Amino acid sequence: MKALPELKQDLNDPTAIDSPYAGDPAFDMHVGGKMELTARMALNGPEELSLAYTPGVARVCTAIHEDPALADVYTWVSNTVAVVTDGTAVLGLGDVGPKAAMPVMEGKAVLFKKFGNVDAIPICLDTTDVDEIVDTVVRMAPSFGGINLEDISAPRCFEVEERLKRILDIPVFHDDQHGTAVVALAALRNAVALTGRLMETTRVVVSGAGAAGVAVTRILLAAGVRDIAVVDRTGVLNSEHRELEGSKLALAQVTADLTGRKGALADVMPGADVFIGVSGGTVAEEVVVTMAPDAIIFALANPTPEVPIEIAHKYAAVVATGRSDYPNQINNVLAFPGIFRGAFDAKAVAITEGMKLAAAEALADLVGADLSADLVIPSPFDPRVPNAVAEAVIMAARVDGVARN
Amino acid sequence: MKALPELKQDLNDPTAIDSPYAGDPAFDMHVGGKMELTARMALNGPEELSLAYTPGVARVCTAIHEDPALADVYTWVSNTVAVVTDGTAVLGLGDVGPKAAMPVMEGKAVLFKKFGNVDAIPICLDTTDVDEIVDTVVRMAPSFGGINLEDISAPRCFEVEERLKRILDIPVFHDDQHGTAVVALAALRNAVALTGRLMETTRVVVSGAGAAGVAVTRILLAAGVRDIAVVDRTGVLNSEHRELEGSKLALAQVTADLTGRKGALADVMPGADVFIGVSGGTVAEEVVVTMAPDAIIFALANPTPEVPIEIAHKYAAVVATGRSDYPNQINNVLAFPGIFRGAFDAKAVAITEGMKLAAAEALADLVGADLSADLVIPSPFDPRVPNAVAEAVIMAARVDGVARN
Repeated sequence: MKALPELKQDLNDPTAIDSPYAGDPAFDMHVGGKMELTARMALNGPEELSLAYTPGVARVCTAIHEDPALADVYTWVSNTVAVVTDGTAVLGLGDVGPKAAMPVMEGKAVLFKKFGNVDAIPICLDTTDVDEIVDTVVRMAPSFGGINLEDISAPRCFEVEERLKRILDIPVFHDDQHGTAVVALAALRNAVALTGRLMETTRVVVSGAGAAGVAVTRILLAAGVRDIAVVDRTGVLNSEHRELEGSKLALAQVTADLTGRKGALADVMPGADVFIGVSGGTVAEEVVVTMAPDAIIFALANPTPEVPIEIAHKYAAVVATGRSDYPNQINNVLAFPGIFRGAFDAKAVAITEGMKLAAAEALADLVGADLSADLVIPSPFDPRVPNAVAEAVIMAARVDGVARN
Repeated sequence: MKALPELKQDLNDPTAIDSPYAGDPAFDMHVGGKMELTARMALNGPEELSLAYTPGVARVCTAIHEDPALADVYTWVSNTVAVVTDGTAVLGLGDVGPKAAMPVMEGKAVLFKKFGNVDAIPICLDTTDVDEIVDTVVRMAPSFGGINLEDISAPRCFEVEERLKRILDIPVFHDDQHGTAVVALAALRNAVALTGRLMETTRVVVSGAGAAGVAVTRILLAAGVRDIAVVDRTGVLNSEHRELEGSKLALAQVTADLTGRKGALADVMPGADVFIGVSGGTVAEEVVVTMAPDAIIFALANPTPEVPIEIAHKYAAVVATGRSDYPNQINNVLAFPGIFRGAFDAKAVAITEGMKLAAAEALADLVGADLSADLVIPSPFDPRVPNAVAEAVIMAARVDGVARN
């Protein structure tokens, strides 16, 4: 029989694990999972047990039953977010299913804790049906202070988020949309300023009409950009020239329908100030070269940016990517921990557009006097980031009337 | 604006919390909840981030997608149990709802960790519908290595457990039933031996036909007891003399239907060797006095035992209660952490009757030569308990063919 020295298989020697991947640093780091629960108080004898559990706990339950607001004080719910996925759009891997999505969700949870002191629980769902996802999350909602949707494929992710926001009175946030959008906007504010532009007269091309493309476009419009062409695989979203429906039709109506831009990517890139890639694929150099002087290129696909780095630097004044090994990394971790930290500390019942814009502004402002082509967005390890974002979010939650604190 | 020194409201001074209960030790212990998540690895710079999250994590996801069994090794799932309730039968409080149930579920989670090194996540559901509970748990099941049902009222709890056991290939365990049953059986084995009885000829009265009553009765039958009368508010469960259905009918058919016992509690107590109370209410002294000499009384209602302690000691050779301030506490924490520890270490796909019986036997055996009227069951703080239970459960899982390890 196996010895049980620590009541669990010995995880301290990952190279002893029976796996073809033993010895690979990424795999070794994952042995036994990336996180665990810990008690916040001692439990060394009957007296502590009688406070943390029966009979003492009964009075706490009764008090919450009489005044549900006390759950904020006397349970972990108000600091806990569910990281919910169906595993259909995991990183660039696509539909790997709920079990294979777990390492990403654990990673997200670890980042929530490290950068936001938020307790996050991965919930990987064995359904891809919108109704079932919504029903399941609504039923488990009393256990959580917020819902972070993650790696659910478009367009289902839009409906899941919209419906949960309508039903629940806790923050609901689809990070693939809004995390990316907040950080991209922050970087773009600084890049636009650095190149002497104004948001209102900057012409933007967004390549990709999935979760990130939709959210980036919407937040740029909210931040004052007026001329955006969103391009998917079959060309510019323009409902005058293409049959569109759902989220793509809605996006066309607030972008190219207003400016009349149409055609393919190569038709809208000439003269464009900004290219934002959130799609994968590759933009040919002969298309990149047609952009305006001092162009801004955010090529966010991972691991292969839509515009190769050397080509981007050849034609653009500012280049950002999704990669940690280049300057200006557009990394969601700059946003989601501070946004939830702020939402939780404000006891916000929702995360509003104003809270997202405030988070982006706070992030952009942190760069301050250090602003340069290689520094339009802070590093994820800049220790000022989470507090700056959280404080901006708290203020905005109060302005928007969604704070209970 | 509130300062955010630790990115969270300062919980270190519970007496400063704005609550009418500040200063009460049970409430103070609960401020901010009883647990939190912690990362199992360092995350101090870009290199560690690139292993725990993108891009390193992508290879782990891909590997699990290709071989789902690797999720056992490279995620926290195989050591994580969902503690699921609908808040309808919380302690002795009854239907307080999902929010007010959370302190008990957090307490359970803390005990899972402390005594079994099992990571447990409280899931309080906003539905009491059996179909919805089952659907919700099935959909979230890929996130967990086991399901511990808790404080779901009878008779719904029986159907929820049975259906989940049929659908899922991970351990499903309703602790109010089986945790209580395992510990009660362990104590009874020792009490029966101490009083010179045999299980097969011991006559038992179980007062209460809810979750605990049903499970205690079933495990006693499995352990060899042949004469059990189960009594609810309207008398002995006997389908020859009462209209019964569902779980009560099933229970009658394996108890009083076989022995012909009928009537009220007072009709079956005369000559009974054992009284097990899992119902609340009070048994009058003139009924207790009719039991056999050297009777065994387990009066498990909390905080008020069905037979007052002094009266029980007046007539019984062995007395056990649910209370920590008397000897022989029948406390579920003696069972559930070791049972799940063992099930997880055996990679068991279910928790069988054999595993529960083995757990009870291991618990009973721990008392050993110390056996006395005041020590028929170990203390919850006996450090040998979790390992002894886990090892017995592992062996039984292998014998029963449900172990994958």
